[in-house]
Amino acid sequence: RLGKLLDEMHPADVADLMEQVGDKTRQLLLRFWGRDIDGEILSELDEGVRAEVIESLPDSVLSEAVLDLESDDIVDLVEDLEDDRKDIVLGSLPAAERIAVEQALSWPEYSAGRLMQREVVSAPEHWTVGQAIDFLRREDARLPDQFYHVILVDPTMTPTGYVTLGKLLSSPRKLPLKSITEHSFRTVPVDMDEGEVAYAFNQYHLISVPVVDHDDRLVGVITIDDAMAVLDDEHEEDILLLAGVAEDSSLSDSAMETTKLRLPWLAVNLATAILASLVIALFDDVIAEVVALAVLMPIVASMGGNAGTQSLTVAVRAIATKDLTGSNVWRVVGRELVVGLLNGLVFAVVMGIVALLWFGSGQIGAVIAVAMVVNLAVAALAGILVPVTMEKLGVDPALASGTFVTTVTDVVGFFAFLGLAAVVLL
Amino acid sequence: RLGKLLDEMHPADVADLMEQVGDKTRQLLLRFWGRDIDGEILSELDEGVRAEVIESLPDSVLSEAVLDLESDDIVDLVEDLEDDRKDIVLGSLPAAERIAVEQALSWPEYSAGRLMQREVVSAPEHWTVGQAIDFLRREDARLPDQFYHVILVDPTMTPTGYVTLGKLLSSPRKLPLKSITEHSFRTVPVDMDEGEVAYAFNQYHLISVPVVDHDDRLVGVITIDDAMAVLDDEHEEDILLLAGVAEDSSLSDSAMETTKLRLPWLAVNLATAILASLVIALFDDVIAEVVALAVLMPIVASMGGNAGTQSLTVAVRAIATKDLTGSNVWRVVGRELVVGLLNGLVFAVVMGIVALLWFGSGQIGAVIAVAMVVNLAVAALAGILVPVTMEKLGVDPALASGTFVTTVTDVVGFFAFLGLAAVVLL
Ligand SMILES: [Mg+2]
Ligand SMILES: [Mg+2]
Ligand SMILES: [Mg+2]
Ligand SMILES: [Mg+2]
Ligand SMILES: [Mg+2]
Ligand SMILES: [Mg+2]
Ligand SMILES: [Mg+2]
Ligand SMILES: [Mg+2]
Ligand SMILES: [Mg+2]
Ligand SMILES: [Mg+2]
Ligand SMILES: [Mg+2]
Ligand SMILES: [Mg+2]
Ligand SMILES: [Mg+2]
Repeated sequence: RLGKLLDEMHPADVADLMEQVGDKTRQLLLRFWGRDIDGEILSELDEGVRAEVIESLPDSVLSEAVLDLESDDIVDLVEDLEDDRKDIVLGSLPAAERIAVEQALSWPEYSAGRLMQREVVSAPEHWTVGQAIDFLRREDARLPDQFYHVILVDPTMTPTGYVTLGKLLSSPRKLPLKSITEHSFRTVPVDMDEGEVAYAFNQYHLISVPVVDHDDRLVGVITIDDAMAVLDDEHEEDILLLAGVAEDSSLSDSAMETTKLRLPWLAVNLATAILASLVIALFDDVIAEVVALAVLMPIVASMGGNAGTQSLTVAVRAIATKDLTGSNVWRVVGRELVVGLLNGLVFAVVMGIVALLWFGSGQIGAVIAVAMVVNLAVAALAGILVPVTMEKLGVDPALASGTFVTTVTDVVGFFAFLGLAAVVLL
Repeated sequence: RLGKLLDEMHPADVADLMEQVGDKTRQLLLRFWGRDIDGEILSELDEGVRAEVIESLPDSVLSEAVLDLESDDIVDLVEDLEDDRKDIVLGSLPAAERIAVEQALSWPEYSAGRLMQREVVSAPEHWTVGQAIDFLRREDARLPDQFYHVILVDPTMTPTGYVTLGKLLSSPRKLPLKSITEHSFRTVPVDMDEGEVAYAFNQYHLISVPVVDHDDRLVGVITIDDAMAVLDDEHEEDILLLAGVAEDSSLSDSAMETTKLRLPWLAVNLATAILASLVIALFDDVIAEVVALAVLMPIVASMGGNAGTQSLTVAVRAIATKDLTGSNVWRVVGRELVVGLLNGLVFAVVMGIVALLWFGSGQIGAVIAVAMVVNLAVAALAGILVPVTMEKLGVDPALASGTFVTTVTDVVGFFAFLGLAAVVLL
């Protein structure tokens, strides 16, 4: 009964189920399948769980499971194996498939070359619709499971355009293929970063894209379903990095693994928090005199941290979508500064009045008001300048920029507030 | 020359350019195009800039531009127009197209019905490959620009499967279509949320999906390029909401608009920061006695805020990808608690020693150590329980949960640290 239920589920759902159950249930499921585990399920598993599952499979079962898959999925699976198991799996593939996978593995990780499938459908660019249809309908045409275009190539195998199957089906036989190619045609180089590939798919509404080597020759094709998965991964990376979580963490990691992955950023945060404390320590005499300052100072820091995070998140997202570029960066920096000043003024008035009413001191009200303007303006600037600078330096703008920005707002916030207080109140 | 340059660019790139230049350059570009603006460009523009551009176009130019577009893109453009202009644009469409657009507009915003195109290619389920090919090749078959499947329907127009064009092209004419349908076939109801649709595309590697009404009849089809754009929007929503930025903010908004959008969450944050200050105020006597407490207290709050944000972000992302479900939520809650305790212990030891060395007081060291464990454990729990509860209540788990969580960690952090200090030191 369990077997029937699992058979009817999509492999992606079975994989999710395996990720969500505990280790013991997972081992039970594996024992239940025995030698029959589906390659598609392996291919859908998160890397962490997949490594664990693959470790528990005998070589023969693994080799068998991989046989069902297309070359791009085999590459994705094999690239994470240890060398000895990789060799065993590769060795059990048919020669043509093995060579395709080995070539893909020769390209860098996270490149178009790793993402593409080798199974392509191409035709000489001088062919007519009729010739292409006859070619596709030949019984010995070994066509991939999924394809959406016929890629036109010149005699050197350079892609020069592509024709959708819909156009091919609906055009007169005598028309040259060249006359019905798509306007959206473009190719990607085999060493392009997969994130750039996903961006191109989304930007240009591509369904598939031919991949070319350094001599512009057709070497494979990437389909949009794989590009969509990459887009989703890139987003996961951004949102997790912004929060100081390692991108390769997974919900099925153990508490120990999770602790190890989260601890480093907390350690960095501790160092920066101590830095902020040193600023406070500079002014311990004025705090001892006026304890109200200790009560109010976290408000200045918290508002700065929030405003900086708003500005930072907008910038990180805009860099990821290529909406923030050299051509508008200064306009956006200017805008952020104005926004910081305007919000600073609003909350200066509000907090000035709150502090005045709370502690009955116009001086404390004035000090927190000025500190608020300074800190929100600095927060807005840091929020955009930190990620822009990191991007310029070739570092992922999401990486640790949150910690950077809140360090700036804490230090500036405490310094402005307590420093002004020392001048005004002592 | 400018015209030639712009003509060679993809409409999506022209749209990005228009978003990135300032208001004045944008108006110049529009004046340059005059009556010739491309509907594709309008369709690619961000909603904010698009509204501004459309406002400046005469009715006749707008109606003309819309004529090039497919029904799903017309819907996306028309749904944001004011009623009088909407009527003018709809009135200028050919009757069949107008009815299609009006029907789509009758479905709720952000539903499958708004996302689908009405142009579908379907065939009776009893047809053979040959019949389908002949039908597609008829000169009067009005086929959409882009399609990837032939949808099989029963006599009541209920979709029962689909065949890829690749399979159709490569199969013998006599084969029944039913024998070459895809395993991945599924339909979506017309009122399904677009985010759910995008999830289904990504989860099941769909390329297109038939949309059915409440009687299970075929009413349209959604293609993966539009689903990919929705997935990207959902990402944007999550990352911006987590940072307290309104989802409909755009890089081309003015400083004034941006301030208005960001101010509400800063106001909420101010209220919660004042709440945390009230906790500090409870203990102003002990701070007056031992100023070291004022120096150290932001460290406890900051570490709690960071740990809570890590836990929160992982949870929000996992809810979005449906990896955190009823079946594993308690296991993950348990894991987060253990992670919080483990990290708490590590940083308790570190900060205990730092405080001891810095202020030469074992008591202060002990107090901050205990407060650290308490706060990191509470942070981890709040980080997961807040979004899970919001999801249960039908609220977007990314919405404001950051503010919730840091409020909890601030209040608990200050209370634990200063409360303990009051007991131990006074
Ligand atoms: Mg999965
Ligand atoms: Mg795949
Ligand atoms: Mg991989
Ligand atoms: Mg990447
Ligand atoms: Mg693939
Ligand atoms: Mg990235
Ligand atoms: Mg863009
Ligand atoms: Mg754009
Ligand atoms: Mg819309
Ligand atoms: Mg949505
Ligand atoms: Mg479309
Ligand atoms: Mg969402
Ligand atoms: Mg999943």
